[in-house]
Amino acid sequence: MRPSSSGSEPGLFGAVLARGGAADEVTDGAWLAALLEVETALAAAAADIGVVDRHSADAVASACADASAFDVDAIGAAAAATGTPVLPLVDAIRAGVPESARDAVHVGATSQDVLDTAMMLVARRATVPVLADLVGGADAAAALAGEHRATVMAGRTLGQQAVPVTFGLVCAQWMDGLDGSADRLAVVARALPLQYGGAAAKVAGDVVLLAQTEVGELSDADPTRGGSSAMAHKANPVAAVCARASARRGPGLAGTLLGAMEQEHQRAAGAWHSEWRTLTDLLVATGSAAAWLRDCLEHLVVHADRMAANLSSDLRGMGPGDAAALVDRALREHDSRARSR
Amino acid sequence: MRPSSSGSEPGLFGAVLARGGAADEVTDGAWLAALLEVETALAAAAADIGVVDRHSADAVASACADASAFDVDAIGAAAAATGTPVLPLVDAIRAGVPESARDAVHVGATSQDVLDTAMMLVARRATVPVLADLVGGADAAAALAGEHRATVMAGRTLGQQAVPVTFGLVCAQWMDGLDGSADRLAVVARALPLQYGGAAAKVAGDVVLLAQTEVGELSDADPTRGGSSAMAHKANPVAAVCARASARRGPGLAGTLLGAMEQEHQRAAGAWHSEWRTLTDLLVATGSAAAWLRDCLEHLVVHADRMAANLSSDLRGMGPGDAAALVDRALREHDSRARSR
Amino acid sequence: MRPSSSGSEPGLFGAVLARGGAADEVTDGAWLAALLEVETALAAAAADIGVVDRHSADAVASACADASAFDVDAIGAAAAATGTPVLPLVDAIRAGVPESARDAVHVGATSQDVLDTAMMLVARRATVPVLADLVGGADAAAALAGEHRATVMAGRTLGQQAVPVTFGLVCAQWMDGLDGSADRLAVVARALPLQYGGAAAKVAGDVVLLAQTEVGELSDADPTRGGSSAMAHKANPVAAVCARASARRGPGLAGTLLGAMEQEHQRAAGAWHSEWRTLTDLLVATGSAAAWLRDCLEHLVVHADRMAANLSSDLRGMGPGDAAALVDRALREHDSRARSR
Amino acid sequence: MRPSSSGSEPGLFGAVLARGGAADEVTDGAWLAALLEVETALAAAAADIGVVDRHSADAVASACADASAFDVDAIGAAAAATGTPVLPLVDAIRAGVPESARDAVHVGATSQDVLDTAMMLVARRATVPVLADLVGGADAAAALAGEHRATVMAGRTLGQQAVPVTFGLVCAQWMDGLDGSADRLAVVARALPLQYGGAAAKVAGDVVLLAQTEVGELSDADPTRGGSSAMAHKANPVAAVCARASARRGPGLAGTLLGAMEQEHQRAAGAWHSEWRTLTDLLVATGSAAAWLRDCLEHLVVHADRMAANLSSDLRGMGPGDAAALVDRALREHDSRARSR
Repeated sequence: MRPSSSGSEPGLFGAVLARGGAADEVTDGAWLAALLEVETALAAAAADIGVVDRHSADAVASACADASAFDVDAIGAAAAATGTPVLPLVDAIRAGVPESARDAVHVGATSQDVLDTAMMLVARRATVPVLADLVGGADAAAALAGEHRATVMAGRTLGQQAVPVTFGLVCAQWMDGLDGSADRLAVVARALPLQYGGAAAKVAGDVVLLAQTEVGELSDADPTRGGSSAMAHKANPVAAVCARASARRGPGLAGTLLGAMEQEHQRAAGAWHSEWRTLTDLLVATGSAAAWLRDCLEHLVVHADRMAANLSSDLRGMGPGDAAALVDRALREHDSRARSR
Repeated sequence: MRPSSSGSEPGLFGAVLARGGAADEVTDGAWLAALLEVETALAAAAADIGVVDRHSADAVASACADASAFDVDAIGAAAAATGTPVLPLVDAIRAGVPESARDAVHVGATSQDVLDTAMMLVARRATVPVLADLVGGADAAAALAGEHRATVMAGRTLGQQAVPVTFGLVCAQWMDGLDGSADRLAVVARALPLQYGGAAAKVAGDVVLLAQTEVGELSDADPTRGGSSAMAHKANPVAAVCARASARRGPGLAGTLLGAMEQEHQRAAGAWHSEWRTLTDLLVATGSAAAWLRDCLEHLVVHADRMAANLSSDLRGMGPGDAAALVDRALREHDSRARSR
Repeated sequence: MRPSSSGSEPGLFGAVLARGGAADEVTDGAWLAALLEVETALAAAAADIGVVDRHSADAVASACADASAFDVDAIGAAAAATGTPVLPLVDAIRAGVPESARDAVHVGATSQDVLDTAMMLVARRATVPVLADLVGGADAAAALAGEHRATVMAGRTLGQQAVPVTFGLVCAQWMDGLDGSADRLAVVARALPLQYGGAAAKVAGDVVLLAQTEVGELSDADPTRGGSSAMAHKANPVAAVCARASARRGPGLAGTLLGAMEQEHQRAAGAWHSEWRTLTDLLVATGSAAAWLRDCLEHLVVHADRMAANLSSDLRGMGPGDAAALVDRALREHDSRARSR
Repeated sequence: MRPSSSGSEPGLFGAVLARGGAADEVTDGAWLAALLEVETALAAAAADIGVVDRHSADAVASACADASAFDVDAIGAAAAATGTPVLPLVDAIRAGVPESARDAVHVGATSQDVLDTAMMLVARRATVPVLADLVGGADAAAALAGEHRATVMAGRTLGQQAVPVTFGLVCAQWMDGLDGSADRLAVVARALPLQYGGAAAKVAGDVVLLAQTEVGELSDADPTRGGSSAMAHKANPVAAVCARASARRGPGLAGTLLGAMEQEHQRAAGAWHSEWRTLTDLLVATGSAAAWLRDCLEHLVVHADRMAANLSSDLRGMGPGDAAALVDRALREHDSRARSR
């Protein structure tokens, strides 16, 4: 099994709504590190083309190497004067290099150049744990698909039993959705992380429905989980519920990002700034959905007996068709995708 | 002048996107305090109706009185087991009362009861500084309206000069929008804080447009502000730009909250959880828009000479009609609103 | 029973997504009628204050009285030249009055004045059938609440059975949500129609879940409904599903309207125009949700035997508490609300 | 010049908000045609694998060949019974084939299979005129970029003049955005059409700002356009304003579609249905933005004299750098993209 994305944001709601490794990649510290890397690369590039001397560029690199030397809160507070934290950061870098190297800092760039490049770095890094969790989730779905390729259950449309399928086929479809999301995410580092949360929540929603007391075809493995403050007898599908909660934040945040595409002239007066936190939140929400979903699938308990018992009488005569063969084909496809990653 | 809402969230983007007092009212600490108040009130109410004894209720109140005794990060981390921080909080309260009082903690309530009541407290408190900033902004607009009741400028539709108005009339309309928002906010503590950010950003957008280099009819008073990392000659309308940036986060967040109204049975499996951070962010964004806007209006510099010079030749023959009288009427209305607050 | 809002928009998706009377109030014809009323009132007001003579104002009223004399498609097509249909409409009205009365048409108004006033008329009229359907739905919920005040069923949180409640209590909560929405809607004609769809879809979502094959505690009365193209044995909860579908369009449309509040100067260059269709769609979607929901509640079949049978063994010992008394109190409240309408 | 996408939806707001060829591809008639094609293809495929006989499949094809034989309003109205128009459509097709061929209609498919496949056909066809307008807009931007490669103007950030650029460089960036959108649209037929409207509105927003009375660097070519109902002296940038208005509908609609990704089991109870009109509206809005933008760029009048005169005194000493060379490089890239289409 692939190494799991782990951890979550601290604080009251972090474990529920900011689970997984993505939250770590969008902290203020991660943003600061990315900004410093961009300034370092800028000075090096300026030295490469002879705009600044190499010695000064090295001084910039040296000043930027230790992020802990910068006071994030002070830089953030100073941003109130200009509307961007890049200016006070540049001042702080300049204060950290010899007088002779000051002009080599932030040479030929605007604050938007620097912040947007850092934003791409942050986004790209945050997708790494999301990808790990999507792939981990797909692997878990694949294992379930293989194991239950012939486990008959009711297919349901609009909440009504419709035709028999197998639970393996349902898992193969989950797996396919997660694999597809992972593949697109590997290609498109930034774009719309939202879509990947969407794939996770489709699975999570199905798990919630299949875990209802009256259905009871799936449940959560961990007996310490799902207690309720008032009712000891419940086994809530916590991981699936939290995956849905995390993913539901996506469409609104994505809409805000899409709306921010309309930017004035060479720099938008507001739309640009609105992206910073929105993208941060979207990455956290997406990562949290993927991390919860993976956890959910890796610990899912399948009650094949309830699947059989729940099958309504008018479905019992029908077989699940070639569900098992379809599952096998999907698993081969998953293997070939997994090998090419 | 009314006392100003002050401060902003710390961190890299807090000063730009989380300005004003609302951010302080939605921190984890504020949520924790609200949750403890609800548990205290619950125990007291249970004692009132005789469900628990008064001594035990007092023990609960005593345990809940010191929020610093609770470890927010630990409680938040434990929330991963059940999907809500209320359960580990209840455990922590129980650990802080004598054995005999344990049953008096969280009596007869679900975690949703407690969390939703705390959410209302948090929302109501966060609106106090928002209200102060909206009212402060309206006062500043009123001062401008009075001073410039007869200062002629071009009225513009679709970016084109259309008819002469006075700057006082423009300010009176801003003032009216802000007063209306403040009045509605005073009535509806929670509902949709978004609308109040919307009113602020209408003003901010106008300021950005009137501050364009080629228009130059307004500018920012503070000479230390608005510098650019690359260009010293600019005087950016920072406060207005940041007000717009903060307000632009609103519609997407509000859409998510509206979408969360569809909740299953006695508790939604995901939609409910998605509200916590979304409402938090919406309150912060709204408060930030109001705080920036107030700052913008309190320091606005009006260039009446540019207003006159910009008037296109075909508008010079026309007068501003009864703009001054309309301003006077609006100011009387503002005064009566302000007196009744 | 109150007279029902009826009809739906024609076309392929109208019956599903544009059910109820609201769709009729937002057609092009309804918009045209509202625009003509505004122009009529404008001329009359101008005559009242002596800006135009009464004879000319009467000529304008006469020309505007017959909406069928105006070619909506031609007026709409001509809107491409200026970005608003008001200008070609004014031209058409002018062509319909004597030469001497031409100056009395559209006197002292901008196209935005006229279109925004018409938009308010359209919105206010569209809320009438929405209100009728919300009230009708509340009445139907009240009838169910009274009938099932003591019918025990499982209360469910996160899809898990939690405590016993009565179906009457569930209906009383639905009723209360619908009554509250209706009362607010009666006060606020325009504002955010979305919220009223939200209340309807909470009910619809619960019905869908309670109608699942494995739960089967509710079903749709009409045996001709809910057939599936492939499966004859299903009884889909069509009305509830369509209510949810209609309501789900709301948050995104509401977000767009909220985003359009930021308008430039004396007229926004785009945001204003974007409101026309968005508000239209939001009114239709809200009305459709309310109409479907009312239909759903008026024909709901309650399977009290399944409610009892589904109760999990660990809930059977517990009673539903004072659910019946709570229902009775809610019904009295509903009656007093209904009497005051 | 490539053939232009033309036409617009009829009705009061169609010319403004539903311009271009996409509106024609999403009418009820277009949906019906797509549904009939899917049923035809289904019967043919069933014949290919021997599930139905070829003669019956041909009878289905023949019945489906004449869309005008089907009554869209009647089929739509009948959809109220089941929540989908596919069932009554299947009934109507069956009524149009000989008794012996009835079983060959809709064989082995669910209504969701048929409707979703038709939705893909509709979406793919609607992107053709959008693509034509994006490419046409890019060509027009390329012509402007070539002509004005050395026309100096002020670069502006946050509405403030910042550095000199050339108008050719601005156009080259517009061109690049439109080319990129067109290329991605050619690859991804469906996905998120929104993004393509976003690229159009960035250009439209810049045109609105550059056409402001006080800036006056661009204007609309058509002297018959841009009149105002109250003010004859204005020349409103109608095409750009309408492009923005159309594009502003996008993010909310896209958010709704993204939200609909979370669908229950084998068919969602509401989310699925909500996609039909939302995707339709999104395609229309996107197409309208692209069509207006193309029109805007094809008729843009550039006032190079105002560009020079507006340059603030502190920018006059600076040159535009290597803007002209950058433009030339961008134009070569555009040519190679255009040749590969």
